[in-house]
Amino acid sequence: MEIGQEIYTLCDKLFPICRSITGNGVRETLILLQGVCSEMTIHEVPSGTSVFDWTVPKEWNIHDAWIKNSKGEKILDFQENNLHVVGYSLPIDANVTLKDLLPLIYTQPDQPDAIPYVTSYYKERYGFCMTQRQKDSLPEDTYHVYIDSELKDGSLTYGEILIPSTEGNTDEIFLSTYVCHPSMANNELSGPAVAVYLAKWLFEKKKRRYNYRIIFIPETIGAITYLSRHLPVMKDRIRAGFNLSCVGDDRTYSYIASRYGDTLADKAAKNILSFHYPAYQYYSFLHRGSDERQYNAPGVDLPVCAVCRSKYGEYPEYHTSKDNMGFISPTGLQGAYDVYHDIIEALEYNRRYQIQCLCEPQLGKRGLYPTISQKGSYGEAKKMTDFIAYADGANDLFDISNIIGISVKELLPTVARLEKAALIKAVD
Amino acid sequence: MEIGQEIYTLCDKLFPICRSITGNGVRETLILLQGVCSEMTIHEVPSGTSVFDWTVPKEWNIHDAWIKNSKGEKILDFQENNLHVVGYSLPIDANVTLKDLLPLIYTQPDQPDAIPYVTSYYKERYGFCMTQRQKDSLPEDTYHVYIDSELKDGSLTYGEILIPSTEGNTDEIFLSTYVCHPSMANNELSGPAVAVYLAKWLFEKKKRRYNYRIIFIPETIGAITYLSRHLPVMKDRIRAGFNLSCVGDDRTYSYIASRYGDTLADKAAKNILSFHYPAYQYYSFLHRGSDERQYNAPGVDLPVCAVCRSKYGEYPEYHTSKDNMGFISPTGLQGAYDVYHDIIEALEYNRRYQIQCLCEPQLGKRGLYPTISQKGSYGEAKKMTDFIAYADGANDLFDISNIIGISVKELLPTVARLEKAALIKAVD
Amino acid sequence: MEIGQEIYTLCDKLFPICRSITGNGVRETLILLQGVCSEMTIHEVPSGTSVFDWTVPKEWNIHDAWIKNSKGEKILDFQENNLHVVGYSLPIDANVTLKDLLPLIYTQPDQPDAIPYVTSYYKERYGFCMTQRQKDSLPEDTYHVYIDSELKDGSLTYGEILIPSTEGNTDEIFLSTYVCHPSMANNELSGPAVAVYLAKWLFEKKKRRYNYRIIFIPETIGAITYLSRHLPVMKDRIRAGFNLSCVGDDRTYSYIASRYGDTLADKAAKNILSFHYPAYQYYSFLHRGSDERQYNAPGVDLPVCAVCRSKYGEYPEYHTSKDNMGFISPTGLQGAYDVYHDIIEALEYNRRYQIQCLCEPQLGKRGLYPTISQKGSYGEAKKMTDFIAYADGANDLFDISNIIGISVKELLPTVARLEKAALIKAVD
Repeated sequence: MEIGQEIYTLCDKLFPICRSITGNGVRETLILLQGVCSEMTIHEVPSGTSVFDWTVPKEWNIHDAWIKNSKGEKILDFQENNLHVVGYSLPIDANVTLKDLLPLIYTQPDQPDAIPYVTSYYKERYGFCMTQRQKDSLPEDTYHVYIDSELKDGSLTYGEILIPSTEGNTDEIFLSTYVCHPSMANNELSGPAVAVYLAKWLFEKKKRRYNYRIIFIPETIGAITYLSRHLPVMKDRIRAGFNLSCVGDDRTYSYIASRYGDTLADKAAKNILSFHYPAYQYYSFLHRGSDERQYNAPGVDLPVCAVCRSKYGEYPEYHTSKDNMGFISPTGLQGAYDVYHDIIEALEYNRRYQIQCLCEPQLGKRGLYPTISQKGSYGEAKKMTDFIAYADGANDLFDISNIIGISVKELLPTVARLEKAALIKAVD
Repeated sequence: MEIGQEIYTLCDKLFPICRSITGNGVRETLILLQGVCSEMTIHEVPSGTSVFDWTVPKEWNIHDAWIKNSKGEKILDFQENNLHVVGYSLPIDANVTLKDLLPLIYTQPDQPDAIPYVTSYYKERYGFCMTQRQKDSLPEDTYHVYIDSELKDGSLTYGEILIPSTEGNTDEIFLSTYVCHPSMANNELSGPAVAVYLAKWLFEKKKRRYNYRIIFIPETIGAITYLSRHLPVMKDRIRAGFNLSCVGDDRTYSYIASRYGDTLADKAAKNILSFHYPAYQYYSFLHRGSDERQYNAPGVDLPVCAVCRSKYGEYPEYHTSKDNMGFISPTGLQGAYDVYHDIIEALEYNRRYQIQCLCEPQLGKRGLYPTISQKGSYGEAKKMTDFIAYADGANDLFDISNIIGISVKELLPTVARLEKAALIKAVD
Repeated sequence: MEIGQEIYTLCDKLFPICRSITGNGVRETLILLQGVCSEMTIHEVPSGTSVFDWTVPKEWNIHDAWIKNSKGEKILDFQENNLHVVGYSLPIDANVTLKDLLPLIYTQPDQPDAIPYVTSYYKERYGFCMTQRQKDSLPEDTYHVYIDSELKDGSLTYGEILIPSTEGNTDEIFLSTYVCHPSMANNELSGPAVAVYLAKWLFEKKKRRYNYRIIFIPETIGAITYLSRHLPVMKDRIRAGFNLSCVGDDRTYSYIASRYGDTLADKAAKNILSFHYPAYQYYSFLHRGSDERQYNAPGVDLPVCAVCRSKYGEYPEYHTSKDNMGFISPTGLQGAYDVYHDIIEALEYNRRYQIQCLCEPQLGKRGLYPTISQKGSYGEAKKMTDFIAYADGANDLFDISNIIGISVKELLPTVARLEKAALIKAVD
């Protein structure tokens, strides 16, 4: 729980910042994340850069915004909640009638008390978001609408943490999360906050078989931008990857499969979740919605899936002002951290093992088997003989765990004992 | 419904003709079918011709038949129902006692009011068919039994329609149906009647990727005869084939799998039926019974399955006088016509598509994606992104339809839009 | 039933002998088995021989053992039940207090009326087995404990029957069973008793496609010893093998899969059981426990599974004095004999068949098909046409049996008829 609390505190600091796909909110966020993991590097990609089928957009920054009624009272204030402004709104300073104001206002009619999260990245417009209840109660009046923003050439900003293998391998594990959402907690401060604490732990590990590539990007355009710069090396090196999003609440665990659900990442995620939280929600790739869309695109074909707590799009608070710091919790964050921790540990130890003798080894002479034989007396030894029976050089740890129904975590001491006795050997 | 009505009217004209596996009934039938599709050619294969393990039999024709009692009253009359005579009966003109008459009479004891359909193609005999009820009531008497038929060397007759691809391909779609049953409606006037209207529609289509081979044959011996003449070219060219039989009633839809249920024909039939009529009856190849027996024989190995309404052998009226014009209907025929129409259209458009950029394309700049982003606003665009996600050059349209749960018919406009935007390309 | 009775009588003769993994009990047992099948050869492997990761242990023999109370009354007597002594007990002759006696006594606390079967092959100790009820009632006293046994260099004994193919093939079927258990009936006199009668039948058969290798060994160490001498030739020749154990009671049938359940032996066992006793118990390889452990070890990889009646470890009488001659029966033994008989017969006839003509053959002209065609008249012929439809040279008899739902036994006459008519040919 200690780490869950630290992650929660970090989220709390990040919450008020108004992030978007570009701009100073992203930069402030990355600097706070560097506070946890100083090895993060920050990168800027100029507006107008071509990235596959897309173009890096103009940079957007906002300083203030409000609507005042004719008495000069603020009836909506960006300083109170940055969801009140449609993301990427152009500046405006004008007096409008109620009739002209209404088309500028976005609400979530099926959730009349929530301010929706709305953006217009690729078409220039301006707009405000408020609750349906407030919109319904607006009287005839002259309103002063004001947005102090600027949209101009600048750059797209992202963070990157590269953690080297201690064994000189080139194989990589990939984690991706995003830093482009304004004040919402589960989606999406939980992702970058959990990811940066995983990075910190990985740096502190004494042994790392894999390299780790962990990126903090704006969603979609950031993933596309990053891929446009690194795809060949990523295809060559990444063995398993995960998109971290919505990892902060307490309700459930979810798994979103890769395009065909058959990668090493899927195998690891399904195995760990099936022992950690067997009632986890399964979502096929048809329910994707975050950057796994890009990582799994045909031709990109990276082995990336996702493990969430309550998945984006599947909880009512999603993309509204209700996804606030009360929706996530230290235990929720800790739970997700633990699952990713276990997935990574399992991947680190995952090998194909081969038994080193013909027939079953004589475990008894090594003190690994009871010396007296009577029915019902083989409990612990059974785990070992089952492991050995499938240690045929073709199965990896996940395969054996799935076949014999024992978690990888619980198998690791068995593996260590057998390796020490020189009875098995990694053969991959 | 218009076409269903036309097909029904055609069946009605064909119904009274006494067809068998050879003879003038087949010829008359084919000439009436030529009235719908004049491109049909008619072929004659002489009796005695060796066709694989079989021999084309003698030609059988019948002019009249009856049984009279001693008062000279016709108690059974071929002119009233041609099922009254066992198919391929030799001529006879004799007076017999009741005791001698009874062994000549075939009934369907479990359906005492139905005249059964009985044949004896390969053993020379004569016989009459009547209801069990009539047989049970026959009094002691002297009966005059009379069959005016002839069985002599002649030929086996079949019709063939070949419709060329408009694109110069050699690949073929194959339809087979049979014209050897006397007065029964679902099995089998519905098959040739629906097939000839499909042929008419295919000739009228402006674009045909495939060639079409549509044959109207006597069952079993006709299929074997046709295969003995055309097998090498058929094996080379046919990509999907269907045996049309029992396509006229309103009760259900049925699908009979090919030998292993894994051909393109099966894929098309299952996909179309699963959206058109999800409650369709599935039959494995063990429930085959028509010419798919020959097309799927080991060594023949053509990709042929069948879609029926109520499948032969599975409805009580089958092979009796109850399978009459009241058992089939314009809506029943239209339904089957529509399913075959949709199967063929889907096959025509079925390609392997490959997305033409890395990562998701920017649909918004092409007017294919909403410019404002808010939860619940992606309905139409979702179909497009799902299609693209699986357009990896390995999946064909049926695969993608099956994966994303949208019918091929509904996908076609999406495909057209994406092709027009140069975002996907057929790669097969 | 005749054979079941003979097998039962043999078990009855073998029952009193005190067998262990070495010693004269094994030799006496093998000599009695030679009485049924004189072709059995008996082999001795010296103590100390290295066999893979193991060493052949010292030979153990026992002449008598008892515990007397201070009145000189025998309260436990090896002559009454040889389970009363822990297998491989060292000799002892001493007076002990109750307190010192209790740690030497083994019971089965959850079955207070049963004497458990306990061994200590690889750690030198001595001990007695009694019912929990007896142990609980032992009064304070001075006890005289006496074991007249010897543990010294000698040899491990096993029997082997080799039955040659009558066709000069090298392919083998392998049967393994064990002769190391003292007075218990299902586990394990049933195995060697059924196996030796199968050997007798196989010798009497006029035609044998396969060679048969049938071994009677001490469990585990015997299997490892045998494999260490014969593995290369066994890997080369054995096509299917079965471990015979627990084949004597009437309760059920069981099947224990090989490591991946995908060998010819599994295919045969599952097919035969599914027709013989469809409610049979399925056990994955995780439930293995006998010599299939060695035969399926990685690198050994022999195609060996097991068919039992009530499987070892799954019936309460297992490994106690309750597994006595009353637990097995002539019908129980006969049932297992019949299943193995049918498995072997099916394997003998199992071939890949290929139809010899294109399209369906004309069965009628060969008298194999009804000459009159009317619905409901194809019963017998349907079996034949179904067989032919899948006789494509790829499917073996088990495959076809599984696909068309007819037992191999019932298919054999069909195969014979079709082969005689030269319509099919074995192609493997």
